[in-house]
Amino acid sequence: MIAVLCGGVGAARLLAGMVRAWPASDLTAVVNTGDDTMLHGLAISPDLDTVTYTLAGAIDRERGWGLQGETWAAMEALGRYTPERPAGSTAGGTWFNLGDRDLATHLYRTHRLAEGARLSEISAEIARAWGLRLRLLPMTDDPVRTMVGVADGEIGFQEYFVGRRHSVPITGVRFAGVEAARPAAGVLAAIDESDVIVIAPSNPVVSIGPLLAVPGVREALLGRRPQVVAVSPIVGGRALKGPADRMLGELGVPVSAAGVARWYRDLAGTLVIDTVDGALAPEVEAMGLRCVVTDTVMSEPGVAGALARAAVGR
Amino acid sequence: MIAVLCGGVGAARLLAGMVRAWPASDLTAVVNTGDDTMLHGLAISPDLDTVTYTLAGAIDRERGWGLQGETWAAMEALGRYTPERPAGSTAGGTWFNLGDRDLATHLYRTHRLAEGARLSEISAEIARAWGLRLRLLPMTDDPVRTMVGVADGEIGFQEYFVGRRHSVPITGVRFAGVEAARPAAGVLAAIDESDVIVIAPSNPVVSIGPLLAVPGVREALLGRRPQVVAVSPIVGGRALKGPADRMLGELGVPVSAAGVARWYRDLAGTLVIDTVDGALAPEVEAMGLRCVVTDTVMSEPGVAGALARAAVGR
Repeated sequence: MIAVLCGGVGAARLLAGMVRAWPASDLTAVVNTGDDTMLHGLAISPDLDTVTYTLAGAIDRERGWGLQGETWAAMEALGRYTPERPAGSTAGGTWFNLGDRDLATHLYRTHRLAEGARLSEISAEIARAWGLRLRLLPMTDDPVRTMVGVADGEIGFQEYFVGRRHSVPITGVRFAGVEAARPAAGVLAAIDESDVIVIAPSNPVVSIGPLLAVPGVREALLGRRPQVVAVSPIVGGRALKGPADRMLGELGVPVSAAGVARWYRDLAGTLVIDTVDGALAPEVEAMGLRCVVTDTVMSEPGVAGALARAAVGR
Repeated sequence: MIAVLCGGVGAARLLAGMVRAWPASDLTAVVNTGDDTMLHGLAISPDLDTVTYTLAGAIDRERGWGLQGETWAAMEALGRYTPERPAGSTAGGTWFNLGDRDLATHLYRTHRLAEGARLSEISAEIARAWGLRLRLLPMTDDPVRTMVGVADGEIGFQEYFVGRRHSVPITGVRFAGVEAARPAAGVLAAIDESDVIVIAPSNPVVSIGPLLAVPGVREALLGRRPQVVAVSPIVGGRALKGPADRMLGELGVPVSAAGVARWYRDLAGTLVIDTVDGALAPEVEAMGLRCVVTDTVMSEPGVAGALARAAVGR
């Protein structure tokens, strides 16, 4: 059994490799929900959907999010209303682009939440509808919202990430509501019972960070440190995607695979770093982590499968 | 000043004629919201949208609802999830078809409601976005839900109208929540201050019925009976659209223009009936209503304009 702690794109690609290497029934993906948001009254779970769409082979790989062959009629039509909203309203905002077919996922999730279903149940239903066979769990069924401190105050993650194109410096990160959140059913058991727990090459601050902040998750991992393998999302001093590099730097962490080692050293017994960073292996090992050096740039699922096997060590 | 009490299609067509005959600033449409419903977490207001889209020239006239040139990607995609919903869930239901561009209207309305805006404010914003210049008011900002009694119990209006294609006999109608509803701001003033109040050729039971049940509306109309003009939605013993004919019959009302006269006789000083029903004029007048006989089948806006002028009498 393998548990994978997941953000969005990087985790989804790693999982796509893992389902080629192991039976899906051996895999549990525990996915960040700190990016979740309400838009136009709809419940949006970006990382869950990225994982689902990627594993279904339906993700738009060029865009990096949403569905292939998507259309945008609803969002284009929404723009008609934006000029009529009163001052202070955010209705009719089209900065967060939702494709027509993607909307269906949010409509289904919102409807089920209104019926009282838990996000974990709903995510399993959506995953089945796309033919996924691994176990897909949100980190929690409770609301957790990643808030990002910026120069002019604190903003929601999606406003930072999409609205401001993750281009403004951050002063801190807070996971609103996390103190009261409980891990979704199955999360702690997956950590306890897995032979290996993989921390995917996702943003350590805002993708893995919320997951580790859910009460009980960090504690469960601390007891399994020899079995915890993190994959560095920093390659050659840069994040392959998204603002992980700048975020780490702005929080005073060295922007390198060694910095990632420092970030995860209490939790992970092993760090997987890219071959371009091979020279950092001694520095990683000096921090008490086993270091695996391999190709981590998952340009296609074959690389992801090899990376997964190297990470899991079998 | 003219106030028009409105359901959906028939009222929208009459209004389309009226805006050709009078300055839009002289017109107030008060629209039924008993058909409103929540679907997939979205707030749907079918009659308000039918009026708006019709007056904007954007309605799909053949289909009778929704927008011209509409696409259906979201609903088609939603069907993927329907088989995965658990027993008892209604999520993923595609029986109520929402077009992609139409969805934008519901997203905007739902977002604004979540911001605390009143339906009357939102409806005005949506109307402005479509270039409407008349005043468009929901009958109330409070939730009223038309419930239809059928053989197997009581069902929501949309389940009766769309889900069962208004093809099952009704045993009664109830407007849930109406006792606590207040007329939207401007509704009673529009009735009090208008020179003529037109009851549109909408379903008397489930379109005009909820409107008259909002506390204060019937009372306001009773004081203006000589100025109240109803247009019969029954022509030649049949409803031009929808189940008004069967509903009246099932409630024991004669299915004819004379039956409509009986239905409205306390409220309306005048009934407009179609030329095909001209022979019923003496029967209508014997009930104490002035009877206007004219062409009421609004196959195109010119007919609607002439009907409007005949109804208003100028």
